[in-house]
Amino acid sequence: MIDEGLVEVSHGKLKLTPLGLKKREEWRVKYYDVRCSHCEGKGIEEDAFGILEDYKKIASLRPKPIAEYDQGHIKEEDVMRRIAFIYERGDLEDTRILVMGDDDLISIGMALTRLPEKIAVLEIDNRLIDFINKVSREYNLPIEVERFDVRHDLSEKYRGNFDVFITDPVETLEGITLFLSRAATSLRGVGSAGYFGLTHLEASLRKWREIEKRLLNMNFAITDMLRDFNVYPMKENLEIAQEDYIISRRISDIVGTGKIDADFYRSTLIRVEAVDNIRIPVVGDVKLKDEIYVDNESLVTAKATRRVK
Amino acid sequence: MIDEGLVEVSHGKLKLTPLGLKKREEWRVKYYDVRCSHCEGKGIEEDAFGILEDYKKIASLRPKPIAEYDQGHIKEEDVMRRIAFIYERGDLEDTRILVMGDDDLISIGMALTRLPEKIAVLEIDNRLIDFINKVSREYNLPIEVERFDVRHDLSEKYRGNFDVFITDPVETLEGITLFLSRAATSLRGVGSAGYFGLTHLEASLRKWREIEKRLLNMNFAITDMLRDFNVYPMKENLEIAQEDYIISRRISDIVGTGKIDADFYRSTLIRVEAVDNIRIPVVGDVKLKDEIYVDNESLVTAKATRRVK
Repeated sequence: MIDEGLVEVSHGKLKLTPLGLKKREEWRVKYYDVRCSHCEGKGIEEDAFGILEDYKKIASLRPKPIAEYDQGHIKEEDVMRRIAFIYERGDLEDTRILVMGDDDLISIGMALTRLPEKIAVLEIDNRLIDFINKVSREYNLPIEVERFDVRHDLSEKYRGNFDVFITDPVETLEGITLFLSRAATSLRGVGSAGYFGLTHLEASLRKWREIEKRLLNMNFAITDMLRDFNVYPMKENLEIAQEDYIISRRISDIVGTGKIDADFYRSTLIRVEAVDNIRIPVVGDVKLKDEIYVDNESLVTAKATRRVK
Repeated sequence: MIDEGLVEVSHGKLKLTPLGLKKREEWRVKYYDVRCSHCEGKGIEEDAFGILEDYKKIASLRPKPIAEYDQGHIKEEDVMRRIAFIYERGDLEDTRILVMGDDDLISIGMALTRLPEKIAVLEIDNRLIDFINKVSREYNLPIEVERFDVRHDLSEKYRGNFDVFITDPVETLEGITLFLSRAATSLRGVGSAGYFGLTHLEASLRKWREIEKRLLNMNFAITDMLRDFNVYPMKENLEIAQEDYIISRRISDIVGTGKIDADFYRSTLIRVEAVDNIRIPVVGDVKLKDEIYVDNESLVTAKATRRVK
């Protein structure tokens, strides 16, 4: 549209040119906002359990995200909605839940509902481990945290021992297969469920199809896919490493600045459920390789050596 | 729960026994309603285009569903929401859309937005064909209707000629493969999208996984799955054949009456998008066989000879 003279760059923003404005009239371009304004288009109340305030208070004290671990958390209301959706599926009450990587502190949110039987968190960042442990003691929550590096396979106590996993994997094919393998190793079997996020920003639909194929081969059925359910705020979150993002450099090439002031990073929440004995594609320890963290679809990504999520 | 004395049958309804009530207290059983009350938990406004009233007026005059063609329509507000979701995906404006079986009159709803380039309806029921033709002339809508029987392959003019298909297939594996084959035959190729509904009532998760596998093999990626997005009202709709439903007989065995007064039939709205040349599993004409319409998961289903959807 820039080439066609319909759009121009002005102070780092795109806007319609006089020709663009004229064409908009002529073509009767109209935008309908179809999403529900009450629930931000998500269909789920933001505070179904009445714990949002407590959760926000706790989350406000969390360690700031650091680029070293490629961290970034979804916004507090969306964490609550994710929990509510998990609850509605029957995956929260009286269940054993494994959280693999917990930047979102969803373990604390779930525990505050007092519904799960037990929550285990596997996390690489010692600051988060200490924080979750401290909160867990203070509020008397059934959360166990352990240090975990996805390169290593699960230790015995976590294998085949959970009803539900929750994780937000990296989006390279190698990386997501590794994350989903580890997470699925924790599950009991038929009827166990998994939740994870997947973007359209860093994963093409061809990659989606391949990931879906692998999930079906693991003997999961895909049961839910909620587009844009998880929003990652820029403020005090993704902005920490934005100068490193490939997308910032690409935007900068066009509009002259790579500074991003919109919450552009969002993901689809996907639920899968095991319909048969789960098959695990990656077993045993693996070496850290660049391919796990970066591929040619990466846009919001730091160097591999800084990304042991 | 009946066997355990927690639940009893009373006037055709289930209710908690005194023991059940006591246990509910003891176990602190609580139900949280997590769905947004404003949009019925669907995340989408019920009248984003301001055409709901017109659409309802038209739909109120439609031919009544008959059991012969296994008909049943989703409620008007949900038709509007389905259209809004299709719009938001970029699949409504300036597109060519094929509707295979149109009990829902979604063709009319879409056309009333004045956004699609063209809509083709393939339908077996002459009453519906006449009705849609009449409305189309009266409101000057870009809808073409033709009689179609899913046993026959698409005629040349429909092949590879559409951006989007919409259908609500039967849920046997043979049947859904046939419906999706015919519908996908109409699509142009990479980037074309399809929408269809799938239930948890008549399709087990094992069957879901098999259907998903077939979709991936056709070179689709699954992009969205909205649980319970489509509700089929009983009134003036599914009730027409309810004495024939297997589920009615099963309920009758337990509670003494098969009369259903809740809108129990609902389906997940699934969107797929082609990421490569589409592969069609069923090509050419097929014979009508029972397996297309009935399998051991069928619950709301008439006799095969009455079901040429």
